[in-house]
Amino acid sequence: MRTPVCDLLGVDFPLFAFSHCRDVVVAVSKAGGFGVLGAVGYSPDELEAELRWIDDRVGGRPYGIDLAIPENMSVKYEQGLTSSSLKQRIPPQHHAFVDALLRRHGIDPYSAAPSDEDRAVGLMHDTAERCMDVAFRHPIRFIVQALGLPPQSMIDRGRAAGVPVGALVGSAEHAIRQVEMGVDVIVAQGTEAGGHCGEVSTMVLVPEVIRAVAGVGAKHTPVLAAGGIVSGRQMAAAMTMGADGAWTGSVWLPTVESEISQVMREKFLAARSRDTVRSRASSGKLARQLRSAWTEAWEQPDSPGYLQMPFQPMLTAAVMQRATKAAEAGSESARQLVNYYVGQGVGLLDDIKSARTVVQEFMEDYAAALERVQTLSA
Amino acid sequence: MRTPVCDLLGVDFPLFAFSHCRDVVVAVSKAGGFGVLGAVGYSPDELEAELRWIDDRVGGRPYGIDLAIPENMSVKYEQGLTSSSLKQRIPPQHHAFVDALLRRHGIDPYSAAPSDEDRAVGLMHDTAERCMDVAFRHPIRFIVQALGLPPQSMIDRGRAAGVPVGALVGSAEHAIRQVEMGVDVIVAQGTEAGGHCGEVSTMVLVPEVIRAVAGVGAKHTPVLAAGGIVSGRQMAAAMTMGADGAWTGSVWLPTVESEISQVMREKFLAARSRDTVRSRASSGKLARQLRSAWTEAWEQPDSPGYLQMPFQPMLTAAVMQRATKAAEAGSESARQLVNYYVGQGVGLLDDIKSARTVVQEFMEDYAAALERVQTLSA
Repeated sequence: MRTPVCDLLGVDFPLFAFSHCRDVVVAVSKAGGFGVLGAVGYSPDELEAELRWIDDRVGGRPYGIDLAIPENMSVKYEQGLTSSSLKQRIPPQHHAFVDALLRRHGIDPYSAAPSDEDRAVGLMHDTAERCMDVAFRHPIRFIVQALGLPPQSMIDRGRAAGVPVGALVGSAEHAIRQVEMGVDVIVAQGTEAGGHCGEVSTMVLVPEVIRAVAGVGAKHTPVLAAGGIVSGRQMAAAMTMGADGAWTGSVWLPTVESEISQVMREKFLAARSRDTVRSRASSGKLARQLRSAWTEAWEQPDSPGYLQMPFQPMLTAAVMQRATKAAEAGSESARQLVNYYVGQGVGLLDDIKSARTVVQEFMEDYAAALERVQTLSA
Repeated sequence: MRTPVCDLLGVDFPLFAFSHCRDVVVAVSKAGGFGVLGAVGYSPDELEAELRWIDDRVGGRPYGIDLAIPENMSVKYEQGLTSSSLKQRIPPQHHAFVDALLRRHGIDPYSAAPSDEDRAVGLMHDTAERCMDVAFRHPIRFIVQALGLPPQSMIDRGRAAGVPVGALVGSAEHAIRQVEMGVDVIVAQGTEAGGHCGEVSTMVLVPEVIRAVAGVGAKHTPVLAAGGIVSGRQMAAAMTMGADGAWTGSVWLPTVESEISQVMREKFLAARSRDTVRSRASSGKLARQLRSAWTEAWEQPDSPGYLQMPFQPMLTAAVMQRATKAAEAGSESARQLVNYYVGQGVGLLDDIKSARTVVQEFMEDYAAALERVQTLSA
């Protein structure tokens, strides 16, 4: 297939797979799609190890990375900042709320335990800059920013290295801001998407963003469609509306290669499309995820209110680590707490497949859908 | 074009136009689409007049009607029930809340005025039965139920008259219930749709409903896609996912033929896709509409809480009549109150066109979109 983004990024079939799992990235890129490593919360050393692992296995196929660098963050990075020092800034009532919740679900309290949420510091800008130092030493073909405008340094480094910069947006207005700043590829992500998302659905947002960016600057800005897409027919639908490709996430979560827990995999396969919720419970920003005792607790009258980044994610990580461990040991009560980012497309997933099979099925379903719709008008 | 629903309903181009305006119904059916009269709140005599008007002008082209008969209603119809007697059952604090709101927007109070909201009784089951008596005396080709399961009488009358019965749903589970009851055509309506809608987006709901109904019974149940569709490329996208046609509403609201107020038309053309909200403010049930001072007032701390049908719609009608009149006389403050059901697709509308032109543009855009996407794989 040939869309402008195929030429720009060297991909055959413009199916973009966002995943935190390097195995998925490699499998998708080798199968003819485009794997994008979600590099949130990695230290520079960890990212170096991940990218080296990918380079050794991807056989020269193109891949990218996605850095979620919050445009707005409630604390600034400072020398010597650690997860422990950040943890001390969490208000006592939030520690108490989380401890009480854990106890109700039969899990040991959190606040007394040593801090093991090292990833919080990875959200800081300084770490992001050092991660970019690492990323640009590897043959990445695409770098994507997920939380607002990218830092100017991402644009500058992308230009210097010849690596296109992408950005996720949830509204036409945000797409215009991104293109004006110099972003090369827009990912228009509908409200049905897993993770951080806006209010507008993929069906409306995709044509709206395409129309909006067509009015900015002289060159064509490719738009990838995201939100709800877990099959080739949906990808074909998005491209029929004018998208240059599809950006996907949820469909890779229950694959063989995915590193999510068995508990989470089972919950995903059982979930209906109505079982997700757009909530601040996991990250402090509105993000779609599975509804669980965790999202519901924060809506109760005794909730102390959501914290901002990076604090809410620290609480979430602590609880999810403990709840997952207890659930895997057989606790039904702990299982109720466990959740994760996922889009409404989860309702369409009910098998565990290899990532390679998912790519192949996308290709086949894409072709079959277009053939079927073409026949109707023939 | 030939989809199963084209054969079933005798339509050339399976674009369904839901409208409360008979002019739109006639214009769409004559242009090769399928007009569906939203017959909510008509008395049997009014409906008789509307359908006779349509029959005289539609030139034998197929059309249908949509009755929103609430599956659950807070009061039962009883002999002698009038809008005035219903109005007396509205709690005093709700009258006071509405009066205070009107005063703040420079409009005369409501509770002291004579009742002019005769349409409330039209929501009652008994009126619906008498409206069906009327409808089945006309050459309708399709009858659709919009609020839950249809009464058994609609299925029985449809069977007897050879008129297929359709139903709007917002989830796969509801689609299964409808097909099991005997409904012939499912309208899968995503959360981005105007009016009553569920949580799941069109991009996810359409393939989900198609998959769900394929498992019920032996025959093929056509599925129409609804929610966010205001252009041919979006219709093509829905049909690429396997829909048999597209069901639309918002796109007809700012047309030349539409009977909405000039104030509302201007607000629609100015609105972005993010300016709608799923609220109980207008009908008592969750329905997507333009965000306005009316929807916001009900979310404030002094709100007395939403009423159920038919009471909340009575308050809404009273306020919208007064606010629209005052806004048309030039009051900016009254204008802030005015709202109406509309989907997120409103963000893509920015011209006043004839309904005939809209149908023609759908056809052209549909064909162009499929040609463009086909070229990518060639």
